[in-house]
Amino acid sequence: MSREAILAVDVGGTTIAGGLVSPEGQVLVHLQASTREHGTALDTLDALRERLLAMAEREGIRVLGIGAGVPGAVDAEAGVVGEDVQNVPELARVPLARRLHERSGLVSFVDNDVNALALGQWTFGEGRGARSLVLLAIGTGVGGGIILDGHLVRGGAGYGGELGHISINFDGRSCFCGGRGCLKAYVSGPDIAAAARERLEGQASPTLLALAEGDPARVTAAHVFSAAGAGDPLAGALVDEVCQALGAGLGAIVNGLNPEVVVVTGGVAESLKPLESSILRWTGRYAFARALAATRIVVLPVDKTASVRSGAALFLYETARSSQARMGRGGPGRSEITP
Amino acid sequence: MSREAILAVDVGGTTIAGGLVSPEGQVLVHLQASTREHGTALDTLDALRERLLAMAEREGIRVLGIGAGVPGAVDAEAGVVGEDVQNVPELARVPLARRLHERSGLVSFVDNDVNALALGQWTFGEGRGARSLVLLAIGTGVGGGIILDGHLVRGGAGYGGELGHISINFDGRSCFCGGRGCLKAYVSGPDIAAAARERLEGQASPTLLALAEGDPARVTAAHVFSAAGAGDPLAGALVDEVCQALGAGLGAIVNGLNPEVVVVTGGVAESLKPLESSILRWTGRYAFARALAATRIVVLPVDKTASVRSGAALFLYETARSSQARMGRGGPGRSEITP
Repeated sequence: MSREAILAVDVGGTTIAGGLVSPEGQVLVHLQASTREHGTALDTLDALRERLLAMAEREGIRVLGIGAGVPGAVDAEAGVVGEDVQNVPELARVPLARRLHERSGLVSFVDNDVNALALGQWTFGEGRGARSLVLLAIGTGVGGGIILDGHLVRGGAGYGGELGHISINFDGRSCFCGGRGCLKAYVSGPDIAAAARERLEGQASPTLLALAEGDPARVTAAHVFSAAGAGDPLAGALVDEVCQALGAGLGAIVNGLNPEVVVVTGGVAESLKPLESSILRWTGRYAFARALAATRIVVLPVDKTASVRSGAALFLYETARSSQARMGRGGPGRSEITP
Repeated sequence: MSREAILAVDVGGTTIAGGLVSPEGQVLVHLQASTREHGTALDTLDALRERLLAMAEREGIRVLGIGAGVPGAVDAEAGVVGEDVQNVPELARVPLARRLHERSGLVSFVDNDVNALALGQWTFGEGRGARSLVLLAIGTGVGGGIILDGHLVRGGAGYGGELGHISINFDGRSCFCGGRGCLKAYVSGPDIAAAARERLEGQASPTLLALAEGDPARVTAAHVFSAAGAGDPLAGALVDEVCQALGAGLGAIVNGLNPEVVVVTGGVAESLKPLESSILRWTGRYAFARALAATRIVVLPVDKTASVRSGAALFLYETARSSQARMGRGGPGRSEITP
């Protein structure tokens, strides 16, 4: 077993994942708890952290520091969670990096969970060796992470990479965010299910209804993809529209940023994997051929340990950045929290 | 007069601008020639360069190097112009940085003209002191330039920043690029004029027709903006649609990249300036309020000397980058062309 590891955590609305990850990206320990298992999300986080530190000590593993992914916009410079934390409101405005540091003595970094996923893929996954990578996480919501020229794009207020809320249809569907025609409104799991339910009011689809046990209210995105695979016309047309909308979003990413790698992941990615060639065909309708030729697009179903590897990647990214700043090697400085 | 200057050139389909610009951004000399005044665009470029060097010598100005902006995708690393150079086909695939260097003995850099404009605004203009700036140039076409964390985003194949060709309406108007619903198809000068001509077939607009001397074929975007200003309903509705489309595009920029500054410029910017508050209102419909609050959006009518200041900014950006690379201070290296 490796003698060094990063303690990584990922806080979600349903579960909190934690792990010990070697600097090479090997997951040595992987734990999971439901978010409120020990009280609030913060209590559960504390319990997981303590358990992981105890395991590390028992195994003689030196813990280098902590990397944490959380939902919503984050002030990563200050290590403070934003005001809108969907499903985990108890995290709002918590100075999480400081809290983790004070309770463990370890250097701690916090960022948006999808930014961390992008760093994870860039450090250990599909983007190894690339200078630029964009990650699109499609699940209940749609998040994005952008790495360009080796820099994570955080933006002026921590909103960098909110690619789920770029409008691909300026007169289109209303989005919960207040916008119209957001990419999310066409490709997220709940939005696909809602669109299917709407269409079921005007069009029969025995396959889809059977999957939902006869109750349109029970239709999920997974049902829609299954029914489309089984040749159902309603589901097939809807899935093609999902691929088109995703193609338009990917086209915007390819033309606007022209990254070397684009990773499409998240809960819906498993259903999208068999549709990869259709998605690429639609992307080709919206992207410059030469720009697209320089970009590799990969649909990557979720791997259970991806989120803890991502927390480790966040820690490695930030410590590299801090040490560059300390050595006067350019790059923005940061107020690092050290023992 | 300053004793040092950068020789800057900007090659367009109609004119080539050249100038001597101090490292502080002061334009000491500004010349202009029609693109084919001395033969091909390259001949005219040679003539302008020689004239500027002669003027510098006469005035005792030391020329530090050359920065050149050209249309289309550029391999800036190699200093080679791309394959698609609209309106200046004789530049296609020309190793322009090498050519400029060989004929002048000066360190020379070449990039896309809108990338150079973005560097110009970042170095000498609206983005001074900011870490991130996005520039949108709206004229005959729509180009973009993106600077994030102090890095110009060039992309894998030189297409970084092609923000005119992100789709804001995935089932919308066909664009010459092959895409659908591109931002350009709603906000460029020729597209605004074409939309007005189309509407004139079904709806009367005496004001607009009068401006076009009674001939719908002569309607220009400037006419549309004038007629809207004069209360013409057809033109007014169209201009509001332009503001909406632009708002959707700006919303995508704000949510996706959350830059500190966005500059909207180009030939159409003068007509857009009085509409700034409407554009911001529409942007607010598509962008997260907190993200937008961290972004300053400025509509900036074209300044005749902006393009040569941009060439100078390109030179300064590249020499700073090269010297960082030489001193081992991180950042991507580049094959610099030196005497």
